[in-house]
Amino acid sequence: MWQLFQFPLCPFSRKVRLLLGEKGVGYELVRESPWARRDEFLDMNPAGQTPVMVDRAAGVTLIDSNAICEYFEETIEKSPMIPGSAADRAEVRRLVAWFDQILYREVVAPLLYERMEKRIVHRLPPDAKVLREAMKLANTHLDYIDYLIDYRRWMAGPLFSLADLAATAHLSVADYLGGIDWRGHEPTRLWYAGQKSRPSFRPLLSERMEVVSPPDHYDKPDF
Amino acid sequence: MWQLFQFPLCPFSRKVRLLLGEKGVGYELVRESPWARRDEFLDMNPAGQTPVMVDRAAGVTLIDSNAICEYFEETIEKSPMIPGSAADRAEVRRLVAWFDQILYREVVAPLLYERMEKRIVHRLPPDAKVLREAMKLANTHLDYIDYLIDYRRWMAGPLFSLADLAATAHLSVADYLGGIDWRGHEPTRLWYAGQKSRPSFRPLLSERMEVVSPPDHYDKPDF
Ligand SMILES: N[C@@H](CCC(=O)N[C@@H](CS)C(=O)NCC(=O)O)C(=O)O
Ligand SMILES: N[C@@H](CCC(=O)N[C@@H](CS)C(=O)NCC(=O)O)C(=O)O
Repeated sequence: MWQLFQFPLCPFSRKVRLLLGEKGVGYELVRESPWARRDEFLDMNPAGQTPVMVDRAAGVTLIDSNAICEYFEETIEKSPMIPGSAADRAEVRRLVAWFDQILYREVVAPLLYERMEKRIVHRLPPDAKVLREAMKLANTHLDYIDYLIDYRRWMAGPLFSLADLAATAHLSVADYLGGIDWRGHEPTRLWYAGQKSRPSFRPLLSERMEVVSPPDHYDKPDF
Repeated sequence: MWQLFQFPLCPFSRKVRLLLGEKGVGYELVRESPWARRDEFLDMNPAGQTPVMVDRAAGVTLIDSNAICEYFEETIEKSPMIPGSAADRAEVRRLVAWFDQILYREVVAPLLYERMEKRIVHRLPPDAKVLREAMKLANTHLDYIDYLIDYRRWMAGPLFSLADLAATAHLSVADYLGGIDWRGHEPTRLWYAGQKSRPSFRPLLSERMEVVSPPDHYDKPDF
């Protein structure tokens, strides 16, 4: 049985969980708070980051959300999440990198730090200026996502893919932390409403992170 | 003919060039300075980052160094750079992510900013404190690379892989910028001496970035 080391608001772990859900791979959740820098966890992953997946019986440890997604894409045929030609696959990977790196760095990471880590670890209030800047950038990035969705059936093209899962993972964490204003982003809002009703996403939507509560609309199909 | 948009000290472009060299794929270099934020480049890649690869005849644009490497790994059989079992491939991808994200953020990016971008764009001297911190972290990361190379034939295991290319790309940029003290890192130094004599790396080693000069030992096989 696979174990997945993560915490409820880790967007990279959410991306992996969505992929495992789509492919029907079973796993057990193990709670890990990377900011605690637990020795046994650092021994497992010297980078000290979630997600990590372990299959003790098989002696396999997988580290880094993309290495994990590519692993299951290669080993589980069901529901290909990097589908199409080599060029189509490159477009999926470009967008996943964009969500994981740019959307994460400019929007999700500051929200996580200000609204979760500062509260849990430092017992400090969030910095309103940093939050405002993150929400402003979220708005710009949602414009780009609107544009993608306007021209395509799904995020990366005609087929549902890991790019949709990565976007759902990051946007859902930003939304949980009150960082998304959906007004004026109708294409993305409609796409996200569809995501909310996917069986792979529903279990994640019902989870809560202690101390930090989401806004009312967070798990509503209509928002 | 593929065109590669890059500048000589972009580590992500170096990683791609090393892979193309190993696989024997021809390409033409196009000089691009992402800090100039040229309109035509932003139209091509909204993230505004190098590397980008374009094949105009085929109408294909590839963005993000990993999407590019996976594309050529899928389309060119020669010299597999993500070799082995699914678990072996996950280990290659874990290390590539580690070099591209952690080594880059903590060592290569601050060196590039202080020693190249500040000079070219802002005409300011580097901040000695930031340089010292980057070199201290480089030393810690070299300890980890020593440890990998002590236990393995190559960076990710028994086979030469993209992990070696990613490490070479980032370490060579850090070395060009005077950020690497090789003393006390014998395993990594020997591995890097081997890299320096690979035909895929030699053309890169002889290139220079205007205004910024490398230390004397930079392209010497013996250093
Ligand atoms: N490249 C990694 C990034 C993972 C990551 O940044 N995880 C965060 C939690 S959401 C973390 O562990 N941060 C703690 C740290 O970087 O020290 C992946 O895709 O898995
Ligand atoms: N994930 C990208 C990162 C590329 C990247 O960060 N490139 C740097 C140059 S070495 C850049 O273009 N920086 C300008 C910017 O981020 O605005 C990749 O792997 O290709």
